[in-house]
Amino acid sequence: MIYYLDLFGVAVFAVSGSLAAGRKQLDLLGVVVLAIVTALGGGTIRDLLLGLTPVFWIRDINYLFVAGGMGLLVFAVSRLRSLAKVSIRIHDAFGLAVFTVIGAGIAMEQDVPWMIAVVMGVMTGVAGGVLRDMLAGEIPLILRAEIYATASLCGALVYVGLSTLYPLDQYWIIPVEKANMVAGVLVTLMLRLVAIKWNLSLPVLSTIEGD
Amino acid sequence: MIYYLDLFGVAVFAVSGSLAAGRKQLDLLGVVVLAIVTALGGGTIRDLLLGLTPVFWIRDINYLFVAGGMGLLVFAVSRLRSLAKVSIRIHDAFGLAVFTVIGAGIAMEQDVPWMIAVVMGVMTGVAGGVLRDMLAGEIPLILRAEIYATASLCGALVYVGLSTLYPLDQYWIIPVEKANMVAGVLVTLMLRLVAIKWNLSLPVLSTIEGD
Amino acid sequence: MIYYLDLFGVAVFAVSGSLAAGRKQLDLLGVVVLAIVTALGGGTIRDLLLGLTPVFWIRDINYLFVAGGMGLLVFAVSRLRSLAKVSIRIHDAFGLAVFTVIGAGIAMEQDVPWMIAVVMGVMTGVAGGVLRDMLAGEIPLILRAEIYATASLCGALVYVGLSTLYPLDQYWIIPVEKANMVAGVLVTLMLRLVAIKWNLSLPVLSTIEGD
Repeated sequence: MIYYLDLFGVAVFAVSGSLAAGRKQLDLLGVVVLAIVTALGGGTIRDLLLGLTPVFWIRDINYLFVAGGMGLLVFAVSRLRSLAKVSIRIHDAFGLAVFTVIGAGIAMEQDVPWMIAVVMGVMTGVAGGVLRDMLAGEIPLILRAEIYATASLCGALVYVGLSTLYPLDQYWIIPVEKANMVAGVLVTLMLRLVAIKWNLSLPVLSTIEGD
Repeated sequence: MIYYLDLFGVAVFAVSGSLAAGRKQLDLLGVVVLAIVTALGGGTIRDLLLGLTPVFWIRDINYLFVAGGMGLLVFAVSRLRSLAKVSIRIHDAFGLAVFTVIGAGIAMEQDVPWMIAVVMGVMTGVAGGVLRDMLAGEIPLILRAEIYATASLCGALVYVGLSTLYPLDQYWIIPVEKANMVAGVLVTLMLRLVAIKWNLSLPVLSTIEGD
Repeated sequence: MIYYLDLFGVAVFAVSGSLAAGRKQLDLLGVVVLAIVTALGGGTIRDLLLGLTPVFWIRDINYLFVAGGMGLLVFAVSRLRSLAKVSIRIHDAFGLAVFTVIGAGIAMEQDVPWMIAVVMGVMTGVAGGVLRDMLAGEIPLILRAEIYATASLCGALVYVGLSTLYPLDQYWIIPVEKANMVAGVLVTLMLRLVAIKWNLSLPVLSTIEGD
């Protein structure tokens, strides 16, 4: 299940990358490149920081197929009809939620302290989108005053916290590990979708001027 | 020969980085820094992803000498006469062609699947230029609607394809490995130069509006 | 002493990152994220290039506490009174000086050639600030025509040079290693502060036009 969840995260991030490329009038290959960078960027940085090299998509070629395939698919569909209504931010929200939990999970497998696992989850969740926005010349979503890193942080805290409290309790009917992951994904996703829907944001820092 | 080809790629990318720095009115050290980042960036990312650390320019100091030296040279020449006519894009095209093939070759030495080798080739080819353009505050060449990643992809496919078909045939008069590399370099270079000359581009994705 | 110097560098870079986030009206988490990326970015790239993984802040959680804590502190103080007069560039200068010397020192521990140690020092010093400025959508300090990389380079040369000349002379009253570090830090800091004070810069490259 974790593997397919991971591929799902890759797919939705690839769609968000393809759409961002389309907004910038990129050609076919540019779309595929931005789809791949967005979809695989977060996990790549996670693997590099943890020293898990060669990185995951070199070890398992399916990730590359899914990311590149979604880029091609978005491009093909866009030739048939307008994709103007397809939201980058909604796809990004699903990818953010999935990758936050998977990044934290892979970090926990390396026996890092729980705070490091939380940070690795947030980093895995946000890095792909940051790369996408920087390559496309946009201000990264994480830097606009919306609940973005916050949603990822809450989801990672829920997942890592639950996994620490209920690590291997096999007596439950539902496997605990999976329930923990679902909780983490849902918390991130709900917070982020609510923030998109009502344009919620945290208080901002009040320094404006200076050198 | 591969080693000198690699140093040649470093040199031309260093020139493109120096020129980009000059356009931004950077000082001497800024020019050298941008020359080094542009010239060594692609190979550095390649080595990190494959887990080949310490990265190549820490293992062999000549790369740093060539990249930094070209930066100093461009700076020195620019004090004597205008470099306005020297094209960033032409130097970039040569570096793109060389690094695409070398990146794919080093990936193949690690026994990765051929598709991964192609992707590593493209990544090695384009990453230095992307870093250069992002640091200089320009939209990366790869994101402007020209045949750029496409040229790199075609060259990588030709080189990896030929190397898979004719891996170690020693009976030919010309060493096959070198002939394959030359073919990959020439395909990338020709496609890219033709695209620069006639401003060719692939069809673009048609989504423009939306959030 | 080296450890506390390192944490001091993390703290001042975290402050510069928090202030940059404040200028961009980021929310609480955005401030903390930019503080952490700025403070830990340089050392992270250094560790990745040298192959020292997992990277330092995964091995020692204190770095994350200091960086995140400074982000929270700056945010909290900014709610009480204006931070407009607190200079990003001054904090950046202290971080630049400290990280240049520590980066070069860690590289020397890996027995790299002295020129590589100098380059690793400069890279460690400047990378955090470059990441901060790029994420915040600013032109990196290193690319504005001021003495920035130059200050870092001079400090790294002084430290690595002195360490090569006087490697393990235990007969001196002051430990030579520490004296060398202090010399490197002071050279970088003085050069940078003088450049900020009087807006000094090196000659710039004269190519402006072209494609």
